[in-house]
Amino acid sequence: MEGAKGSETVLSELESAIETVVENYNKYSAKENLLRKGGIKKSNFKRMLQSELSHMLTDTTKKEAVEKLFQDLDQNRDGVIDFDEYWALIGSIVKPIARDKQ
Amino acid sequence: MEGAKGSETVLSELESAIETVVENYNKYSAKENLLRKGGIKKSNFKRMLQSELSHMLTDTTKKEAVEKLFQDLDQNRDGVIDFDEYWALIGSIVKPIARDKQ
Repeated sequence: MEGAKGSETVLSELESAIETVVENYNKYSAKENLLRKGGIKKSNFKRMLQSELSHMLTDTTKKEAVEKLFQDLDQNRDGVIDFDEYWALIGSIVKPIARDKQ
Repeated sequence: MEGAKGSETVLSELESAIETVVENYNKYSAKENLLRKGGIKKSNFKRMLQSELSHMLTDTTKKEAVEKLFQDLDQNRDGVIDFDEYWALIGSIVKPIARDKQ
């Protein structure tokens, strides 16, 4: 992204929020070793839901739905969720919130 | 989302960021009149990019790319971007950032 994001740039609220969502992905997809493929593995994914989405996702059925989502998203069955899959997943969790607020 | 989000709930950083991205959608998709279909119409979409994404999207070619994105996303040619399309769009703008940070 060829943004003019020098250190003195003050991001908008939306941009800072987007960065937070990206940084969260990076936090949970950190590669323990360089051999492992980037992406969020299931154990980190579950930890992420519990520590980062515990209010938006309190409903255990929803968590089971997320388990199923993990399977659905992990199309190539490589056991990790890449950024696109992560973004689509957050979107699917959030969508009901967007509808509630309209 | 059947979250236990009472007023006293303190959202995680990720959850607050997600709410900000959702609220931004609602801000730009507000219906001037009840007849109009919900969603972000093009004029509001351009205004959103200029005022909310001016750092992440300074490259005019990128803005033209976004014009194209708007056309690509607005599959049903109804002139508005619904929440799914908005979410996918933000993801596509953000993806290079996620890659840069890895």
